[in-house]
Amino acid sequence: MERPMRLGIAGLGTVGASLARLLADKRDVYGMRAGRPLEVAAVSARDRTRDRGVDLSGATWFDDPVALARDGEIDVFVELVGGADGAAFESVKAALNRGLPVVTANKALLAHHGLQLARLAHKRGAPIFFEAAAAGGIPIIKTMREALRGNTVERVYGILNGTCNYMLTRMEREGIAFDACLADAQRLGYAEADPTFDIGGFDAAHKLALLTSLAFGCEIDLDAIFIEGISTVTNADIEAAAELGYRIKLLAVAQRTDSGIEQRVHPTMIPAHSALAQVDGVTNAVAVDTDLLGSVLLVGPGAGGNATASAVLSDVIDAAQGIRMPAFGLEPSKLAPYRRARMRAHEGGYYIRLSVLDRVGAFASIARRMAENDISLESIVQRKPESGRAAETVPVILITHETTEAAVRRALDAVSRDGHLSGEPRMIRIEALD
Amino acid sequence: MERPMRLGIAGLGTVGASLARLLADKRDVYGMRAGRPLEVAAVSARDRTRDRGVDLSGATWFDDPVALARDGEIDVFVELVGGADGAAFESVKAALNRGLPVVTANKALLAHHGLQLARLAHKRGAPIFFEAAAAGGIPIIKTMREALRGNTVERVYGILNGTCNYMLTRMEREGIAFDACLADAQRLGYAEADPTFDIGGFDAAHKLALLTSLAFGCEIDLDAIFIEGISTVTNADIEAAAELGYRIKLLAVAQRTDSGIEQRVHPTMIPAHSALAQVDGVTNAVAVDTDLLGSVLLVGPGAGGNATASAVLSDVIDAAQGIRMPAFGLEPSKLAPYRRARMRAHEGGYYIRLSVLDRVGAFASIARRMAENDISLESIVQRKPESGRAAETVPVILITHETTEAAVRRALDAVSRDGHLSGEPRMIRIEALD
Repeated sequence: MERPMRLGIAGLGTVGASLARLLADKRDVYGMRAGRPLEVAAVSARDRTRDRGVDLSGATWFDDPVALARDGEIDVFVELVGGADGAAFESVKAALNRGLPVVTANKALLAHHGLQLARLAHKRGAPIFFEAAAAGGIPIIKTMREALRGNTVERVYGILNGTCNYMLTRMEREGIAFDACLADAQRLGYAEADPTFDIGGFDAAHKLALLTSLAFGCEIDLDAIFIEGISTVTNADIEAAAELGYRIKLLAVAQRTDSGIEQRVHPTMIPAHSALAQVDGVTNAVAVDTDLLGSVLLVGPGAGGNATASAVLSDVIDAAQGIRMPAFGLEPSKLAPYRRARMRAHEGGYYIRLSVLDRVGAFASIARRMAENDISLESIVQRKPESGRAAETVPVILITHETTEAAVRRALDAVSRDGHLSGEPRMIRIEALD
Repeated sequence: MERPMRLGIAGLGTVGASLARLLADKRDVYGMRAGRPLEVAAVSARDRTRDRGVDLSGATWFDDPVALARDGEIDVFVELVGGADGAAFESVKAALNRGLPVVTANKALLAHHGLQLARLAHKRGAPIFFEAAAAGGIPIIKTMREALRGNTVERVYGILNGTCNYMLTRMEREGIAFDACLADAQRLGYAEADPTFDIGGFDAAHKLALLTSLAFGCEIDLDAIFIEGISTVTNADIEAAAELGYRIKLLAVAQRTDSGIEQRVHPTMIPAHSALAQVDGVTNAVAVDTDLLGSVLLVGPGAGGNATASAVLSDVIDAAQGIRMPAFGLEPSKLAPYRRARMRAHEGGYYIRLSVLDRVGAFASIARRMAENDISLESIVQRKPESGRAAETVPVILITHETTEAAVRRALDAVSRDGHLSGEPRMIRIEALD
């Protein structure tokens, strides 16, 4: 058997500790699969004394991830520190500068600095593996970077945030309001104390930025993503969606359009019979539409120590087998500059919910505003007044045929100005799926 | 840019012609993704004159795949001849003997000779890639061989034959009988003139044999697979399944049990709400249950020239990038001898349909036979007499709690002997899914 591959693991939180335990417990199996033993040679973590359920006394301890990356006697650097900047960024650069393969689960780091790191990796002949950075245990990075290389991707989309999907699932199944659902998710550990990163759609956007680059061979551009979180989704929307044959999911979508690449994260109505609509709870799913395959769908756990460790292990064994390929599928110089499609040019169907004041002419006025903006309506549903609303308002739901975001925004602005509404109009985009 | 990788393509049928066309049409893209140009340097096919929609005048023609593999000036051998033996087997051996990477879509070849070829490949330092050999465009081989290497697999199962799934879907949706459905599938090109290989379950079994080896790190053993086709599935079964909250699919399953590895292909009742039950038509799906991930599901097109070519291209680019790994994930000497679980030891729930003669005591006798074999019943449904049956028989459907195949067979033999039935009892296994 070949000489061991020495791992340096920076960060011994949930994932790092899972990884270290697995490497100890399944030492023989992994050695056989990698073709050489895998050894934890060096680690870094803030607290040396915490019990992580694994004996790390054989590993050299570093207090600083950057020192580990720079000075550790290691063959591969595993970055599990987290954060877009600081120690994570500096340590990965230090490892790449030594020509060491890097394995990372850090979506924020790559979404912000991926191109720069890919350039450095290319210059130093070191690979960057990041299967764990998007959709946890689902092998979407390997699938897009390797398995779909024969294809031209038209669209990649999915449910990339388990917290949001868990909350939307419970809101739908149990009729719980958003705030109560969030409190529950926090109590159960499915949502952070500060949940903004998840429910605001930012976590999904980081992951989407990576998938977009792999899908279209373009540079990463996190800032180009249109982001809308789930905090405005109400139980009334979810019920209305169900009645109309839809379910609401936080979808992340990147697609090729005539005006460039469109990237967006927002609550989305998808057909209730679609495979993606069946994906409930903390489960993640990613679909890729291509020229050769039509559509491929991957479903699996999006987070958790073991699922993430599984992805990291796959990368570590790739590194052990000497696999070298560009981080984002193409040499960095071949990644095309990002051509950004503006969200106002987005085309699709829309769900619109209005609280209409019960007056003569209100509805005619709304219909006229839609027509003025060339929006044709697929269905119009007048619902019974919502509890808590003044009795003189009537909820009205419109489903549009395909139109543009700009037209919908113009129409809703006009409707608001006309003064027939109580409160702001609510709009949810509809995604066409097979 | 590096020197071109010269492909030798043996077989220019649907897949081979798709591949050659794609390599011509997307030459620049593939060259960029592979890091070097991909060139069709040599081909073999029976008919040189047929129009395949691509100019192959630059390639050296061989009449014989074996001659191409032995003498072609090529860097990788792509075997698309088909068949377990003969030219496919001989040409792959010839290519491996030269140390050439082999890419093949040939499930029969690998199901029968995979271990021998893996040994030869290992000896010669040449890789074998076979993404296209199972589930067409779904990257299940790469997922199992590479992405799930950190995991211990408990079960792999899926819908691996598009013809069967197409037929079962139409029988369910339109109430068409099996024979009419088959004739239609043949007319539309979804079933062969001799459909035995597909509807008898053999095609799915070949694919399962490969997945089993990857899942459990064991030798391939096609003969160990229990195979039952779909020709006995009736519309009455499908209707009864629907009423009980199930759908019927031809499932291929390999799982770790206390008595060894169980491999089986048979019509299976799965919960109607499961993700797998939503997979309709010619679409394929594979799920893998593991220790770290729980369950991962992949869904996509199982066949077709472009989908298969997509898988072949992924392998070709792996080969171009110099990727080397053992064909079945482990060095051939490390693949464990196959420990076969006997089908009679299979544990699960069963659906049983009986045509019971309408006599006093018949039902009590059946219930006694079940009890004698320790089979407890979850539900008993007496249905209205089927059209075409003598009026004096009553269809009775039993759903058992978990029991063994041996117990069910013993009980049904006894029930048959008791003489209360018109015709043979019918039994469909139920698969527990999340």
